Amino acid sequence: MNKSANTEYVIHELLRDRWSPRMFSGEEITDDDLNTLFEAARWAPSSNNLQPWRFICLRQGTPEYDKAFDCLAEFNQRWVGNAPVLILTAYKEKTPKGMDNFHAPHDLGLAVANLSIQAQAMGIAIHQMAGLNWKKAQEVFNVPEGFHITTAIAVGFYGGDPDELDDELKKSELKERKRKPVSEFVGNGQWPS
Amino acid sequence: MNKSANTEYVIHELLRDRWSPRMFSGEEITDDDLNTLFEAARWAPSSNNLQPWRFICLRQGTPEYDKAFDCLAEFNQRWVGNAPVLILTAYKEKTPKGMDNFHAPHDLGLAVANLSIQAQAMGIAIHQMAGLNWKKAQEVFNVPEGFHITTAIAVGFYGGDPDELDDELKKSELKERKRKPVSEFVGNGQWPS
Repeated sequence: MNKSANTEYVIHELLRDRWSPRMFSGEEITDDDLNTLFEAARWAPSSNNLQPWRFICLRQGTPEYDKAFDCLAEFNQRWVGNAPVLILTAYKEKTPKGMDNFHAPHDLGLAVANLSIQAQAMGIAIHQMAGLNWKKAQEVFNVPEGFHITTAIAVGFYGGDPDELDDELKKSELKERKRKPVSEFVGNGQWPS
Repeated sequence: MNKSANTEYVIHELLRDRWSPRMFSGEEITDDDLNTLFEAARWAPSSNNLQPWRFICLRQGTPEYDKAFDCLAEFNQRWVGNAPVLILTAYKEKTPKGMDNFHAPHDLGLAVANLSIQAQAMGIAIHQMAGLNWKKAQEVFNVPEGFHITTAIAVGFYGGDPDELDDELKKSELKERKRKPVSEFVGNGQWPS
């Protein structure tokens, strides 16, 4: 299934063809695959090179996976089992001097994007989810104070059949990817208006 | 100058070779180049597809650029003039229903990373800066309430000569890129320890 972005300007194929499926091929993700994804995240830039990102990596079929699954929103539980791997993301809230690191969630985003582009280059799809009970996840995984669970990410090779999804999910799987025009979020010399 | 990351696992060259210079070639950035960068940002994923990212794009030699330059930390003012373009980034704080969008800064990071990978594919370097007076920038550019300026980004083609930087900047320009090992930020089935 191809969901290439309908772009106004030609962009790199890794960015154009990336999308967030709810179905996956069933092919196994190896430890080397995962290490390569995290290596990509590792080289993201960050404010003062603080690298505030943290990840918990979970394989389906383990008790730890089940604990993470239980933290997901019901809507995500309906499809996330199609992916063999689940990742929880988090950021460190403070700098080494104990100040709030305002840029920490932003920088986690930079690292996750790196991971997603590396995945795309390997034929691996990731689907990021905001819908999780992050407080419950903090408790279940004994996340130390000063860190904040942010998203869950389903990881699996692209593939699968939309007909295996329920009707509502199938519909969202097949709909065109939409974005605002650039003019709505970029201003030249001024705030975009 | 080559500052390829010294990786433990092989990652895509666009991620491996990206770095954040303080010198640039002097080659002009065209409007098409900029539109292509923002097109790449446009197709980032975001929580509920809210696309909370906003950008102000500034060309050196304009009064608006000078206003943005004045908001940068002194350390950044020492080199940022080597780049022909400066971008201010911001995110929208609320959802359409008026709730806090906790994921907005994270999602801005996803969009900026897309922009940076597209730049890399075009031979363009970006250097993100946390060091700016964001409150002053909000005032100067009449940023509406409910948006938060986050970073400034210098944009220019890779190139330039480190000998043209002052000694302190030259030293940081030539030093090796360093990151924590993956084991320090990824935990398998548990919080990284």
